[in-house]
Amino acid sequence: MLNSQTTDSNYLLPPMKFCSECAHPVSLQVPQDDNRMRYVCSNCGSIHYQNPKMVIGSVPVWEKDGELRVLLCKRAIEPQYGYWTLPAGFMENDETTGDAARRETLEEAGARIELHELFSLLNVPHVHQVHLFYRATLLDLDYAAGIESLEVGLFTEAEIPWDEIAFPTVEITLRAFFADIRKIRQEGGQFSLHTQDIFKSMRAGLAPK
Amino acid sequence: MLNSQTTDSNYLLPPMKFCSECAHPVSLQVPQDDNRMRYVCSNCGSIHYQNPKMVIGSVPVWEKDGELRVLLCKRAIEPQYGYWTLPAGFMENDETTGDAARRETLEEAGARIELHELFSLLNVPHVHQVHLFYRATLLDLDYAAGIESLEVGLFTEAEIPWDEIAFPTVEITLRAFFADIRKIRQEGGQFSLHTQDIFKSMRAGLAPK
Repeated sequence: MLNSQTTDSNYLLPPMKFCSECAHPVSLQVPQDDNRMRYVCSNCGSIHYQNPKMVIGSVPVWEKDGELRVLLCKRAIEPQYGYWTLPAGFMENDETTGDAARRETLEEAGARIELHELFSLLNVPHVHQVHLFYRATLLDLDYAAGIESLEVGLFTEAEIPWDEIAFPTVEITLRAFFADIRKIRQEGGQFSLHTQDIFKSMRAGLAPK
Repeated sequence: MLNSQTTDSNYLLPPMKFCSECAHPVSLQVPQDDNRMRYVCSNCGSIHYQNPKMVIGSVPVWEKDGELRVLLCKRAIEPQYGYWTLPAGFMENDETTGDAARRETLEEAGARIELHELFSLLNVPHVHQVHLFYRATLLDLDYAAGIESLEVGLFTEAEIPWDEIAFPTVEITLRAFFADIRKIRQEGGQFSLHTQDIFKSMRAGLAPK
């Protein structure tokens, strides 16, 4: 992402003080014919809905002599400065999910990819986010860290800094990817869509290691 | 949905006049370290990001004597009042995509479902939406129109009012579902995830019929 929207936060409802239509103070109430608290303007009647955001990225793969490497970025921004992530960020208006995956991979890792199918869909309801990762193939090795990355590099499964992964959704996606690869090589078959709901802090570790 | 967020609109960027943090007028500009126009407040420095929304629904199926019927709702609200749709609506904060599919099916069709895997992901970038539909099985036949539906009913493929379907994403999902069913019954195999990007008006027909 090239904007300062955070991929983590501790808000439950992003605060809103004033109506963006008429500048009158808003209040939290349940509108008529609704069943949830919304920011409502008693002056102009505007209801300001807030909805989950999509964070979209890719699993960019380079294969050489039968060995797979995945491109990871070391974060140059908070949250999780200095930790490793797959290239990903907030989907923008006017683009598709595929556009977003390609754009984020180019912005954060300077990498051009061929996009394959959706690989993971991970709900993170307490931060109002849904994370989507697409499988992808690197088109060349001319990658380079974008301004939001300290460095970018290719890692085999054994080389991945598992204790320094920025977000559970990234670790889940990477582990599922290599598990699928092993299964496909041993038994045949194909990749499948991996879905999971994550209810704990995005910054906490996934499980005891 | 039990709120008045529209599933269609003709805006390109939802207008914002005043800062929701400090009530100062905002202006459209490209923030530092960004590359897109955002609503920015010159008084307090707030940047007001706008991102795509997820519309989530289900394909609720009832099977009897080997014949499949799908539950459709006749819309009691705009847009597309009087047209038929699968139960769907805007995902809310604090829920998962599965929660949203079950909630919308209950709200719009009074129907309880067992949710299966994600069946379709459809980008509608010009209205800043991504539509997701899950396959589902109806748990009983005690369905009833919610306040946003004029009526609710079960339809075989031949009975579906194809010329009165509210949105292209619903038609694409229904046609893909019955095509998968035919293929599975003839050749075996399983359902797959269907993805498509839709660039024309949500209200236009899909193709010449």
